[in-house]
Amino acid sequence: ADPEAGRSLAAQCRTCHGLDGIARIPIAPHLAGENRIYIETQLKAFRSGKREHEMMSVIARDLSDEEISHLAAWYESIEITATMPE
Amino acid sequence: ADPEAGRSLAAQCRTCHGLDGIARIPIAPHLAGENRIYIETQLKAFRSGKREHEMMSVIARDLSDEEISHLAAWYESIEITATMPE
Repeated sequence: ADPEAGRSLAAQCRTCHGLDGIARIPIAPHLAGENRIYIETQLKAFRSGKREHEMMSVIARDLSDEEISHLAAWYESIEITATMPE
Repeated sequence: ADPEAGRSLAAQCRTCHGLDGIARIPIAPHLAGENRIYIETQLKAFRSGKREHEMMSVIARDLSDEEISHLAAWYESIEITATMPE
């Protein structure tokens, strides 16, 4: 899995998820720093129909296993911090 | 929606998702800073069966709309940063 290849593939994801994985629209999740296993599982679920979403089902349908692994590696490579309110 | 009420409710989520929303296990997503609309949509999907997961389907089944709104408000209240690799 090659995060750099994932970075260029993620051009198609950035409109909703952001290239840095911080969602640009409220109905899309953040992907920044997500574990690659989670991302691969969800993309394959959208591809197989186990999980459904009007946009993601269409986008995932044409993704190969290799492309999925690159995308997952890209988003996992983004460093995140989380700060709870006092 | 009350983030503080959500914080106490999130005690049942922290084993996998972390109280700060950074996942503790690779198959669970981060929830930190997620938009409350996304979280509410997913919890209601798990509750209705539109989305399925062996653990989440069971956990979500007993959540009320109000509890879901509190949990979503809690995780949304966590501040996150994302830093892309050079």
